[in-house]
Formats: sequence, C-alpha cells, structure tokens
Amino acid sequence: MKAVVYHGPRDVRVEDVPDPKIEKPTDAIVRITSTNICGSDLHMYEGRTDFEPGRVFGHENVGEVVEVGNAVEKVKVGDMISAPFNVSCGHCSNCERGLTNYCERANSPGIAGAAYGFADMGPWQGGQAEYLRVPWADFDALRLPEDARERQNDYVMLSDIFPTGWHATEMAGLSPGETCVIYGGGPVGLMAALSATLKSASQVFVVDRHPDRLKLAEEIGAIPIDRSQGDPVQQVKDRTNGIGADCGCECVGYQAHDQEGNEDNSATLNALVQSVKFTGRIGTVGVFIPQDPGAPNDLAKQGKAAFDVGWHWFKGQSMGHGQCPVKRYNRYLRSLIHEGKCKPSWIVSHELPLEQAAEGYKNFDARERGWTKVVLKPQMKAA
Amino acid sequence: MKAVVYHGPRDVRVEDVPDPKIEKPTDAIVRITSTNICGSDLHMYEGRTDFEPGRVFGHENVGEVVEVGNAVEKVKVGDMISAPFNVSCGHCSNCERGLTNYCERANSPGIAGAAYGFADMGPWQGGQAEYLRVPWADFDALRLPEDARERQNDYVMLSDIFPTGWHATEMAGLSPGETCVIYGGGPVGLMAALSATLKSASQVFVVDRHPDRLKLAEEIGAIPIDRSQGDPVQQVKDRTNGIGADCGCECVGYQAHDQEGNEDNSATLNALVQSVKFTGRIGTVGVFIPQDPGAPNDLAKQGKAAFDVGWHWFKGQSMGHGQCPVKRYNRYLRSLIHEGKCKPSWIVSHELPLEQAAEGYKNFDARERGWTKVVLKPQMKAA
Amino acid sequence: MKAVVYHGPRDVRVEDVPDPKIEKPTDAIVRITSTNICGSDLHMYEGRTDFEPGRVFGHENVGEVVEVGNAVEKVKVGDMISAPFNVSCGHCSNCERGLTNYCERANSPGIAGAAYGFADMGPWQGGQAEYLRVPWADFDALRLPEDARERQNDYVMLSDIFPTGWHATEMAGLSPGETCVIYGGGPVGLMAALSATLKSASQVFVVDRHPDRLKLAEEIGAIPIDRSQGDPVQQVKDRTNGIGADCGCECVGYQAHDQEGNEDNSATLNALVQSVKFTGRIGTVGVFIPQDPGAPNDLAKQGKAAFDVGWHWFKGQSMGHGQCPVKRYNRYLRSLIHEGKCKPSWIVSHELPLEQAAEGYKNFDARERGWTKVVLKPQMKAA
Amino acid sequence: MKAVVYHGPRDVRVEDVPDPKIEKPTDAIVRITSTNICGSDLHMYEGRTDFEPGRVFGHENVGEVVEVGNAVEKVKVGDMISAPFNVSCGHCSNCERGLTNYCERANSPGIAGAAYGFADMGPWQGGQAEYLRVPWADFDALRLPEDARERQNDYVMLSDIFPTGWHATEMAGLSPGETCVIYGGGPVGLMAALSATLKSASQVFVVDRHPDRLKLAEEIGAIPIDRSQGDPVQQVKDRTNGIGADCGCECVGYQAHDQEGNEDNSATLNALVQSVKFTGRIGTVGVFIPQDPGAPNDLAKQGKAAFDVGWHWFKGQSMGHGQCPVKRYNRYLRSLIHEGKCKPSWIVSHELPLEQAAEGYKNFDARERGWTKVVLKPQMKAA
Repeated sequence: MKAVVYHGPRDVRVEDVPDPKIEKPTDAIVRITSTNICGSDLHMYEGRTDFEPGRVFGHENVGEVVEVGNAVEKVKVGDMISAPFNVSCGHCSNCERGLTNYCERANSPGIAGAAYGFADMGPWQGGQAEYLRVPWADFDALRLPEDARERQNDYVMLSDIFPTGWHATEMAGLSPGETCVIYGGGPVGLMAALSATLKSASQVFVVDRHPDRLKLAEEIGAIPIDRSQGDPVQQVKDRTNGIGADCGCECVGYQAHDQEGNEDNSATLNALVQSVKFTGRIGTVGVFIPQDPGAPNDLAKQGKAAFDVGWHWFKGQSMGHGQCPVKRYNRYLRSLIHEGKCKPSWIVSHELPLEQAAEGYKNFDARERGWTKVVLKPQMKAA
Repeated sequence: MKAVVYHGPRDVRVEDVPDPKIEKPTDAIVRITSTNICGSDLHMYEGRTDFEPGRVFGHENVGEVVEVGNAVEKVKVGDMISAPFNVSCGHCSNCERGLTNYCERANSPGIAGAAYGFADMGPWQGGQAEYLRVPWADFDALRLPEDARERQNDYVMLSDIFPTGWHATEMAGLSPGETCVIYGGGPVGLMAALSATLKSASQVFVVDRHPDRLKLAEEIGAIPIDRSQGDPVQQVKDRTNGIGADCGCECVGYQAHDQEGNEDNSATLNALVQSVKFTGRIGTVGVFIPQDPGAPNDLAKQGKAAFDVGWHWFKGQSMGHGQCPVKRYNRYLRSLIHEGKCKPSWIVSHELPLEQAAEGYKNFDARERGWTKVVLKPQMKAA
Repeated sequence: MKAVVYHGPRDVRVEDVPDPKIEKPTDAIVRITSTNICGSDLHMYEGRTDFEPGRVFGHENVGEVVEVGNAVEKVKVGDMISAPFNVSCGHCSNCERGLTNYCERANSPGIAGAAYGFADMGPWQGGQAEYLRVPWADFDALRLPEDARERQNDYVMLSDIFPTGWHATEMAGLSPGETCVIYGGGPVGLMAALSATLKSASQVFVVDRHPDRLKLAEEIGAIPIDRSQGDPVQQVKDRTNGIGADCGCECVGYQAHDQEGNEDNSATLNALVQSVKFTGRIGTVGVFIPQDPGAPNDLAKQGKAAFDVGWHWFKGQSMGHGQCPVKRYNRYLRSLIHEGKCKPSWIVSHELPLEQAAEGYKNFDARERGWTKVVLKPQMKAA
Repeated sequence: MKAVVYHGPRDVRVEDVPDPKIEKPTDAIVRITSTNICGSDLHMYEGRTDFEPGRVFGHENVGEVVEVGNAVEKVKVGDMISAPFNVSCGHCSNCERGLTNYCERANSPGIAGAAYGFADMGPWQGGQAEYLRVPWADFDALRLPEDARERQNDYVMLSDIFPTGWHATEMAGLSPGETCVIYGGGPVGLMAALSATLKSASQVFVVDRHPDRLKLAEEIGAIPIDRSQGDPVQQVKDRTNGIGADCGCECVGYQAHDQEGNEDNSATLNALVQSVKFTGRIGTVGVFIPQDPGAPNDLAKQGKAAFDVGWHWFKGQSMGHGQCPVKRYNRYLRSLIHEGKCKPSWIVSHELPLEQAAEGYKNFDARERGWTKVVLKPQMKAA
C-alpha cells in the first residue's frame, strides 16, 4: 500500500510499504479515508525529535473497518470508525480509570502512553497510508454514525485535536461563565477555543500573531489577541479588569517564542502565569519533551525551563500537563458533531490526495498563510 | 500588652505594644492562649523576606474571645476559637467559593490573600502576643468544643499546619489505597503525613535527613526515607515496583537543597517529578516567592526555577500550588481531634512562655535536634 | 410603601405597608425595579401551602441599593443588585461551603433554608413591593453591571429561576454531549432547557402539554415533547435509540399530573425513572413538601409518594433534590448575560405595574395561554 | 465438578455439573479457592426472586487461573485473582467510563448490568463450585499479590461486599471528619462501616438489632445503635446535636422492616431521610427490585415504596442507588489489605467445605446467632 514515509528532516515521501495484517485476535484493519497532518508531526518532520527513517506518520485517522480478529466482537467490518491517537490496551491500571493517554502496556516497559506513528510512543505504524492496523479494536475504535461518510472533515478531528483542545480546557477547569485565555492559535489552540465556546465561557481570548488563525478564532466568537500588536499579558488584563483570565490553555509547546521572537520554552508558560488570575488554573497540551538536543540553551536541552514558580505559587495557581485521553471525550464530541452543535472542520484549509503529502507538510510547516489544517485523502486522485 | 516584635534578621524581642481594639463592627478581640512558631516565620526571621521591623509575628493562634463588635452575631465572648491564618472577608468572589486563601479584600488591591503577621500578606498584626484582633470574626473564627481548653496543643494546629498538610494531600489528589511521597519532614510535612494516613493511603513516604523528624513520621505509620542514605528518588522507586508514588507533596519550599547540600529552589520540585508516577499529581504547599534577592543564583533571585517541565509533561502530571484555604478543612479536622481520631500535637517538642520566644526562634531556626515544634503560651509564667 | 399582600386563597391586593428599615448593621435597603411572579408563589396563592395573611410575596427581585448598615463595606448606595431568593448568613457551616440554600441561621432553629416572602422559609418580607430589606447584604447581594438598568428582564432571572433551572442540570450531572429530558415547560423548566443548551447538551427534550411553552423551548433549540400526543416516556425513548436520556430534570413538583390528568405527586418522578437510562441522574427542583393537607390521597397528604424505587435502584440511578443555592451560579450567569451569551428574558410575556399584580397572579395561575412569565415593575405607572 | 445448585426455595444441593470451558478467546478458567454466601443470594434462596432451578450460585469468588483463551495477554495461568461480581465487557459506553456495574453487553439487550449466578443478571454460572469461567478476563480479573494464598478470607471480600460497602459511602459523599449512619449491620453494612472508618469519618453509627452484628461494628470503632432499644432516628439525633448525620447508607434493601417488625420496603429509606441532616446524602446499596410478587402489599409488589419525598426534598438531600462498580475500588482496597491497613475478614464466622453449603445457607438465612459470614472452601475436605 501507499504510505507517507519519513526519510529524514523535511523529507517525507509517499512510497509502497507492506499492508498491515491482523497480528493479534483483538486487532482490526481499517481503510483510511481521511488522515490529518498534525502540528506535532512537524516536530518529527523538522528532525527536532527522533523519528526513525522508514517509519510512517499519521495519528489523526478515520476510516472503514475491513477486517477484524476473532476476539473482536463489537466493531464490525463496514463500520466507519475514529481511531484515537492514543493506542491503549483497555485493561491496565491506567486504562481502566480512563487514563488511556498513559496506557502501561502499549509502549516499552516503564514508559506509559503510546500513539500511532510517533517518536518515543511505541512501535505503532501511522495512518497516513491506505490502511492502518488498530490494536485492541473493541476498546480503541469509536464507531461513527452514517453521516461520517459525508462529514469526514468534522469527524476526523475526533482522533486528536478536538479532544486535545477540549482536554486543555478540562485541565484548566473551565466552568461556564468564566473567562479563558488560550496561547497558540494553531489547530489545537483553535479547538481549545471551540471547546471553551461550547462550554459557555463568557470570554475566550486566543493569542497568536498570524492573521489567518486570529480570523478563524473570531469566526467562532472568540476574541483575537494579536501579540504582534503588543504584550499579550497586558492585552488580556486590559479586558479583564486588570485581574487576568479565570483560566488558561497552553497550546504551543516547547518551541514557544518570546515577544522578541526568540525561542524560549518558558515563554508561554510564564505568560500564562501572568495572564491568569490568582487561583487560576492552566492546562498545558502543547508538547514539552524530556530532552531536546536542538534547543537554543542548556536548560532547554535538558528539557527544563526557567519557570516562574514564584508567581505561580504566590498566585495559588494549578497546572495540568500532558497528552489527551481521547476516549474520555470522543463519544460526547461525536454527538455534538452529529447533532449539528459544532463544525470543527471550519479550520480545514486544504484537502490533498495522499500522494501530495510532501506538499502539505512543506507548506504547513512553513506556516504559509492560509495553510491552517491539511487533511490527506488516500482515496482521492492526485490532481 | 506583650508581643513578639521583629527587629531585624534573627532579632525578635518580647515587648510592650498597644492592645488591639475593635476597629470595625465585624471584629472580635481574642486573648491568645497558644500560638505556634511556624517554619514560614523563619523566612522572615532570617531576613530572607521583607518583614517590617516593629511588626508582630504569629499566624497560628488559638484563644478565647473577650470582646466582639456590634455586627458579630455568631461568635460570643467566652468562646474558645481557632483563627485560621488566612484573613478573609467572606463575601468577595474568592471567599464565596471557599478560596479564603486568596481573599480579594484583605490585602492591597490587586493582591489576593492575607495573613496575620506576615510579609506581603496585608497589614494584620500577628498573634504571638497576649491579644489578637480577628476581623470578620463570624466568618473567620472557628468555635471550638470545651475540650479545647485542655487539649490546646492539638487544636492550635488547626489554624495552619494541620490544614496546610491536609491541603497538600488534597492538591495531590490522594485517594484511599494510593501511595504518597512527601518531601520535607518538618511540621507541615509531618502534618501531610498524618493527613495521608487519615485518608488511608496504602503507603506514605516522608523524605528528610533529620532523624528526629523521620522518627516522628514513623510513629504515625509513615515510611521514613532518609536522604542522607542516598538518592530519595531511587529509594521511593525501589519501594513502588519502579513506578513511583501515585502522588506527592512538596513541603519544603524555595530554600530546598539538592543532594549535595546546595540551595536549589528546583530540587524538591524536580525530585517529585521523578518520584511520582506517570499521571501522578503533586501538591506544593512549601512556600515559593516572586522575588528572592538573597537567593544563590540569578534565576532564583527572580523567583524562577529550572523546572523539569519536559518530564513533568511527558509523564502527564499535574501540580497545584499555594497557600491553604484553612476554612475548607478546619471544621472537619476539629471533629477528628474532638472524637479522638488523631492527635496532631504529637510533633510538639517545646511549650514556652511568650517571654522565651527568642529562645524558641533561635533553636527552631537552627534545627537543633529535638526542636520539632514550639508552642508559645502567653499565660504561662517564664521559668 | 406599596406591596403585594396575601389575604387568603386567590386573593392578593396591592396595599400600603410600612417601609423596611435597617435593622442590623449588615442590612441594606433596596428599591425594587423588577420583581417576578414565580410558579412557587402560586402554591401559596392557591392556599395549598400555609402563607400567613398579611405577608408580602416576592422572592425574584432586582433593584437599586438606597441605604446600607454600618457594617456593610462592599455594597454601596446606588449599586444595582440581584438578591438571591435564598436568605443566607454567610458564616454558618452550610453557607461557608456554598450551601446557601440551607442556611442554618436564617430560619427557625432546626430548619435550614430561608427565602423572602415564602411559607415556612423564615420571617422575611417579600420584594413585590417598592422596597426590600436585604439582610447580610455584602454576602447576599450580587452587584450588577451598568447594563442591568436597561436589561432588567434578563438580570431579574438571576435571583431564582435561571439559577434554579441551572441547578436542576447540575444535580442531574449533565455533561456536554449528553442528552437531557426535562419534565415541565414552565419558567423553571425552560430555564433548565436554556441551561442544558448553554452546557452543550447534544439533545434537550422538554415535556409539557402547553403549546406556548413548547414553542418557547423550541426557540432555543430544545426538542419539544408534547405529552398530549402520547406517553412522553415512549417519545423520549424513540428519540434515544430506546435507551432513554442520559439525565433528567424534574421541574414540576408535587402538583404533578399523570397522563390521564389526575394529580399524582409521583407522576413525573416515576416518568423520569423510566425516561432516563441505566446509570442516569435526575435533578429535582420542582417543589415537594412534607405535609400537603390539600392532596388528593393519604400518601400525598403525608408528603409521601408511590416512588418507583425498584426500577430506580435496578437502573443504578441517582437523584438530587431541593432548592437552588443561587450564589453558586449567579455570578457566572451574570457574566453570560452581560457578554450576550444568553437572553433569559425570552420567556417574559408580560410586564405589569405593581398595581396590576392581582391580574398577573390570576392569569399566570390559570395558565392562560401566552402568560408564560410576569414581571412586576414597581416604578411603572398603571395603565 | 461439584457446584452449589439451586433446586427451589430453600433447597440447594452440591452436585456434579459440567466443567466450564474456554468459550471465547477472552475467557479464563479459575479454580475457586474461596467463595462466599452473600446476603443477596438469600433473596434467591428464599424464592423471593426468580432463580432458575439447576443454576449455580456464587458471585463472591477468589481463585487461581488454570487456563486462558488466546486473546488473554495480561492474566496468566497460576495467577491468584479476584473476580468482581459484575461481569463486564470493558468496551461498551458504560464500562469505558468505569460503570462496570451497568455493562451494556453482558446481559440481555436493553438490560445493563450482569453478575455471576444471579437472577435477572445474565446467563453467567456462579462460582460456588470448583471452577468458574471468567469472561473478558483481562478486564474482569484483578490479580492478587502472593499473600492472597494465605489471607484468602480478606481478599475474598474484594469481589463484592467490601467494595459494595465502600460504594455506599461513596454515593453518600462521605468526607473525612463527617458523621455517617448506616442502616443494616449485615456483612455489607459492616463493610460500609469499615469503609467509613478507613475514610476517617468522625462518627460511624451502625443501626441493627442483632447483638452479634452490633458487636462486630463496635470492634472497628463504630458506634452501635440498637434499634431494639428504641427509635434509631432519635438515637442518631441524640448523638448529633439534634441535627442528624452528615450522610447515610442503606444496607438492608427491599425486605426492610419497620420498628414494629413488619416488612416495609420504605422503612429504612424513610428512616434515613429523617436520620440525615439537611443537605445530607444517602447511598443505597441494599437491593430494591422492579417487581416483587411476594411482597406484603400492592405498592411493594410493583416495586414501589411510600417514599418520604416531601422531607427528602425539603431537606435538600440527594440519593444514589444501585449495584457497586467493583473495579472502581478493588485495586485500591487490595492495596489496603496487602499493606495491613485493614482486615475485612473480621466478620467471617464460618469456613465450610463446599459440600456443607446447604448448612451454610440454612443458618445464614435464619440469621442464627454468630452466623455473620460464611466462606465456602471448595478444596477443603468435609468434616
């Protein structure tokens, strides 16, 4: 089958690889119909984190089941399914409490958490391909309603970024009527904004410097904070009686930049500490990593940041970190899509056939204006 | 009246100061019967944080009401009461949600949170004195049962360290049957250990290097981890199948030291990130401060720490910070004391008359062996 | 001043009564600008519950502060405020935990919970009058933004029915993406529907038989279930794959009727048990009372109902009951109104000058078509 | 193999039945080493609920894995395991949220929840036998530490009554320092008392009339309330300043009796409404059933009860109902047993070989003094 194969920094190619097979009785094989390029793919694409050449990318996948193992009893051939990016066994001590983001069995011993096509997240092949093997299929696959065939660009968001944005607002403890500031207006930040809106935040601020992203935020009723126009902390305070927002979301990660444009992995964290009020809560879904050899300073190389713990503590704030447990939310977000309560596809700028994946990666990575989200379509003919 | 007055680094004197008066109709005046020296008093005593010479220390107070303002309707003259260290108005947006630790009215505008006799925590006189003015008395004072007169060393812990230790375990999300590691075996750490025991943790680890503290931990069923015997992270992992504890408490604060004995404000935070498992939660009640001019390095001088956000994020952990909302817990802990379910006085090493306060400060600050907790007794005659 | 005085069943008159005065230093006096007739006023109006002749109705009040006691420090003369229907002291063990609906000091000893102008809810005069005394004003009064003068019909809902409807969905444990069925499309039921919509329920069902109410439900995106067209349980199951709704709200109370139109205090409770799925949650804000001498059968006269505990238990459901703690929600709902996220005034059918209160009571009690909610305006001139 | 077979009311016999076999790749076969007689077995034993003659009893099981299907990857042959009484698939919408008590796949369509050897709870054979088939073994079986072989009478409580008692206190929302009243001092009520003690309730009241049960309650520090000595409601109020307990647990079920000794399915529910304070919470784990043809009155025959909803609502209480999700708790309670924090075996009065099951049933059903809990031992030789 065709798949998007990594060959080294900024070099991905669509090539023939072996078809996936049923390896265990709990597996399913899925024909991919839509698969997104994710911002976290870019860390690997840029060579900033270790991804082995020859591996296949892709953890935002939707498709149709074409084969199941003999222990699979719920998912059927012909079902349209969403595959959460987290690979999870369903019966370890974390999975049984809903912490499928930190499954104890799907990665190496001692490392919790796994994903398709991801550095350090286990051996699982990615889904930017014609077919994908989904392990523990009854637990991992979410069946979709019939309209999934027509509204794929909405449902494809269920495997990662819509739940991930939602999770940011959950870790931030956002309640209806509160205000929320979101650093980062990329796809995840925009999904956090959509989530905050669905939760009836009274005001949702999205901080970014790219006009196309700020415009998308505004389209769903969020308040754009253009950091190219001045210190975002002050802009947020100006709109919240000087108090700061009730809570905040970090949707940028370790490659954050300070106001002067220098990479600084503490920039958004510390800006959030200042932007969020006393007693405020912060949810961090932007990726931070234990080692970062390509970082601009020694602290960051060790995965550490010059974090403003003094103010954070003095203000009595709390922070939650890490990957999203997609299964905790995807069933409910599926219902919101199905009942027409939201359209997360509003951020999609490009649909490309799988063959044009390299073009998608290149433009998305360069943050070319208007390339806000790319969906690859393995069954689409190349132009 | 007599009171413990600060005169500069390591210089406290018992002197005559004016008696407190009813200033507002919601005030009460309390005759102090027991008042502790707290570890956080030592930051000021050492001159590390700014405490204005001439001010009176003391935020762990118990006593008898001797006068009330004309708007006080619940608390009566003659009541024994516990005064939470947090001064709080009861009707701001934080107080009404139980966030009395970050009252918006009891400190300067823009700063939430206040306390008796504390640097940067509002103008309130401390209670290491014969009398104390308690504002918003109906809201702030907790009435005590009759046995409070006999069991003062238990009930005096209700104003700060017992609830503060409890709060550490709350922010750490400790559930019955889980394991908990506590960094710091001082009074607050020991109260966190007592709290974890009362909550039926399956194992409670207390990390310290002082034998008297480790012995007190062991007396209530906790497992002492002597860091002078080697890396505490490894010791905790060795006792938890290599996984780490389910949750952890930081009870040391910004003057933490690394294994080599050098001051390092990131030492316990980063050790906790390593000591606590994937998905683990951490509660930080040890004090961190926004500026620390006396710190050993530039980062710390700005209140920042070289925090291991890479591992913290990768492990999907969360952390809560800040002062304890004493009122959230003190009513319940009062019942546990009254019904004989716990005796937090087990850590008290010394009862001193107020006149000997300077001796108490000196020895407690020096961590003299056996000086684990000092209670001052304004009505006791000096020896 | 003028006030709406109860004289016996179905007899209310606007009469002169003494002006309220500052009685305690924590009081405020408020000039009422809008005050609603509530469905729960009708229980008293009909003589079904004991309301002493001579007392003044009115617990849904908004107005401007005209005088404050000398212990009031937050609320100022000139502030527009919303007075929650619950009278609450702010410092008893319930109030301090946010259970202002069951204040231990504002009613008789042994009875928790109080309200303005209400049978069995303490001595407090109602606000269907020109002026109202608000006790514990700093705690009880919620200050409103300036637009409150123009948008009174929205903000007046904050004192009771909007938070009460919200509370129903809270007790029902409604999460985004879930389905919710609401029995009763009166003002409270409609506010529950608005709340469920704001919380992003995937489907909200409102069960009633009055077309005007069902139409209002539909206007905010809820799904009307017309029980005059057949068994509502079956209608709900038909729209939820036979499973039932995830959760439900009881917004009718003890004067419920069965499908045949006979009064039966178990009717809606048991219909909810059937309409809600296994593991479903139910919030009951419709009023039930300990004694009901006017009830049609002996069980109901004792305040008991033939409750289907067998199915309720077998299905593993839970239920929360009782009055709403308005303060838990009103600050947040105020923000939603202020930011234009909702307009709870959409149910208002009639604005009447205070003098026409009797007409308002008569028509609202008779459920005259189109009389969905009546707001009295003490400053409006009679037509 | 030998098994305890039901032949009709009060007629159980130990007989040869076919050995269980691996039927699906996710199954395991367990050699039973300890299996309890449960109070809920008695409903079937007495013929009060429908249990088909020929079926095998037993849902409180512990044993050793002797065979696994080819999709079982976590549980190994030789593991000692506890099998929760709930049979659950692990991947339906309820199981994935931890609601394994209401699995949607393990019973008939439309009925959620299943158990071994139980009327109306699916087709699953019971474990009062030499062997048991455990479906979905990786999800359903909890592996036990090595000391489980020696301390079986502790660990056997993990399959039902210890978690069930714990669940009662969870649904009752018991927090440390609160008071809790438990109606019913049978095995489940005693486990609720043990749970409340482990959660540091300040006072735990156990209401019963059997001296042996009251004595067991007292042994763990609970306060026995002997209802043969007078109205238990009054006794509880006398010990709680007239206010009532903070929360309560119903551990009796539909065969409750009133003070006069007449069966009345509303007796304990209504006594709890009175025994628990305003705002109190109640957890009901005693079994109630949708139809009860053997009940003493028409209401009860329909599964309904004359419930005091008037007081329940007026007091603002809440109630949770239904079976326990054992998996939510068993891992944590296992740790408490393993670390020596509790010994739930303290209630065991009799160990019998499987062959003497009939004697166990007869005496336990008759509430013979001293027959508080019976553990059957399939590997024990008959006396």
